[in-house]
Amino acid sequence: VVTRIAHLTEAGVLARILPQLPQDGRVEVGPGDDAAVVHLDSPRLVITTDTLTEGEDFLMEATRPEWIGARAAVQNLADVAAMGVRPQGLVVATSAPPTATVEAMEAIAAGLAGRCARFGASVVGGDLGAADRLSLTVTAFGALAEDACPVLRSTARPGDVLAVGSEQLGRSGAGLAWVLAGRADEPSVAELVAWHDAPDPALELGWTRAPGRATAMLDLSDGLVRDAGRIAEASGVVVDLDGELLAPDVQALQPVARALAEVRGGGPRAAGPGARRTDPDPTTSGWQTAQQWVLHGGEEHAMLATFPPSQVPEGFRRIGRVRPCGAGEQARILLDGGPVPGTGFDHFA
Amino acid sequence: VVTRIAHLTEAGVLARILPQLPQDGRVEVGPGDDAAVVHLDSPRLVITTDTLTEGEDFLMEATRPEWIGARAAVQNLADVAAMGVRPQGLVVATSAPPTATVEAMEAIAAGLAGRCARFGASVVGGDLGAADRLSLTVTAFGALAEDACPVLRSTARPGDVLAVGSEQLGRSGAGLAWVLAGRADEPSVAELVAWHDAPDPALELGWTRAPGRATAMLDLSDGLVRDAGRIAEASGVVVDLDGELLAPDVQALQPVARALAEVRGGGPRAAGPGARRTDPDPTTSGWQTAQQWVLHGGEEHAMLATFPPSQVPEGFRRIGRVRPCGAGEQARILLDGGPVPGTGFDHFA
Repeated sequence: VVTRIAHLTEAGVLARILPQLPQDGRVEVGPGDDAAVVHLDSPRLVITTDTLTEGEDFLMEATRPEWIGARAAVQNLADVAAMGVRPQGLVVATSAPPTATVEAMEAIAAGLAGRCARFGASVVGGDLGAADRLSLTVTAFGALAEDACPVLRSTARPGDVLAVGSEQLGRSGAGLAWVLAGRADEPSVAELVAWHDAPDPALELGWTRAPGRATAMLDLSDGLVRDAGRIAEASGVVVDLDGELLAPDVQALQPVARALAEVRGGGPRAAGPGARRTDPDPTTSGWQTAQQWVLHGGEEHAMLATFPPSQVPEGFRRIGRVRPCGAGEQARILLDGGPVPGTGFDHFA
Repeated sequence: VVTRIAHLTEAGVLARILPQLPQDGRVEVGPGDDAAVVHLDSPRLVITTDTLTEGEDFLMEATRPEWIGARAAVQNLADVAAMGVRPQGLVVATSAPPTATVEAMEAIAAGLAGRCARFGASVVGGDLGAADRLSLTVTAFGALAEDACPVLRSTARPGDVLAVGSEQLGRSGAGLAWVLAGRADEPSVAELVAWHDAPDPALELGWTRAPGRATAMLDLSDGLVRDAGRIAEASGVVVDLDGELLAPDVQALQPVARALAEVRGGGPRAAGPGARRTDPDPTTSGWQTAQQWVLHGGEEHAMLATFPPSQVPEGFRRIGRVRPCGAGEQARILLDGGPVPGTGFDHFA
């Protein structure tokens, strides 16, 4: 038995959701009034907002409600973490079609609440409205200590190294490829699909290890190349990725890339009977596909930062270096000193 | 010549929008990094979020882009104001179809920026993504002074009076009725339609006049009866609206209600040839329709508060009183001691 939210009032839906949400003792006024009141650790508010939309950011048939909630939380908590700040809480505006079930809304809230609870963040308020498609807009916040500097994107320095707070890049991109191939239910890639739908990066590195060491930081949301390129552009430097340091990430995903090529029936072979001989499938080995996931796969939300070479803290690993722009050279992102193959993601381009 | 946002990158769209957004000197880090950093007046963060969705909350053909932005700002600034706090800033997550024009996005931003600038609020960050339909989720924030109490909904006291910070209730409901009748372009109701699409309430009453005087407060978002009922329920009291004090509001909208009935061809007459005689149209005089707008029309966003009788400040006017629940009597909303005619709005019910 499921209950469509159309059969309940807004208050009735909220009554099923609110009890799940974590709130610590610093929440003076929680959900239910016009606004929440939260006692921050300092008056320097750090705040960010991001939306997750059905059909654009996830497919209902290829995810689970709790994953939707988890991802909505993570992608915003990561933005606060990437300033070097512990996320203290969030508010969430949910739009749902009347056909959505209360059980799904409860599961979304549970996924959101779980990720928040892990990092000690409170869910302090929200909004519930109607729309054709499900969407969640989370606004996360924290507080920067009075004597601290935020870790910006624009302050990487020549001589720094680039490092990432993740043991394995490309998992989200790999999971997405299986989702888009209509094979999200393949047991052998269950972990990758789950990572794509509900990434679980070590966000705490952002506020525990990076402050005082990182010269620049952001979270990996649109792919390594695009995001490292943002640091390069904002800082006016060249960021050079090291293919050798990224090779283990690519190799680990090669078997999955090969399996996907088989599932897809060999890709280019579908172009015609002669395609196999004259245009051999470059994904057979899986290298290029796996490399694409590692370089361009989005939605990892791991911390990506620059450090002086001697200051890379535990939990981060080197994957590149920062050098000054040469005479007439534009700030940009390179791989082993040359152009990066493939492309990243833009909402509109 | 118009430019569809599908023809620009996300950065390209943002480059057209960001220069319009107001930011005061307390914004340490504005749009462009992972998160914004804002120096609040105190560490007691007041925060609220709300979504405006095309098709649910507005119709593209019956509004203007700048009004969409203005309303998205106002409905959130009002929630902070209703806690007795000046809104210091907001972030805005916008989802737009690729067919939206850059010009429309600029106008939305201008509408949002205009309302923020009026109240001294900064626009400190945002997010731009794709969706089938346009939606804006604004999260507004402010800071409560260390020695101040937030003005809640749950603290109205028997003996208080109910007062509203608006000279004329029902304008938004009247404007909506003309929009729904497909006559939003009727010149004689232009002000009402504009008020519905971009209400312009005296939000500053919330933080300038109410603190220290109001015992409870919220903003009028879902209609007088529903919102006053929320104060009653949360405070465990009976709120009794005074029909005589609301009569000027109803009378002022009567001619518009009559005109709408004419435009609609007399409404109930359409039920059949005998309807006019056996079931005379109760809206002919316009009283009931205008009363419905005053009692149940939503999206006014004026401050609605309770005060001790001697403490009603300038800018607020009495429209009812608060009394204790009798033995066995539920907390509720009444009109002149009896049941309220008509009904309000619920997203799902």
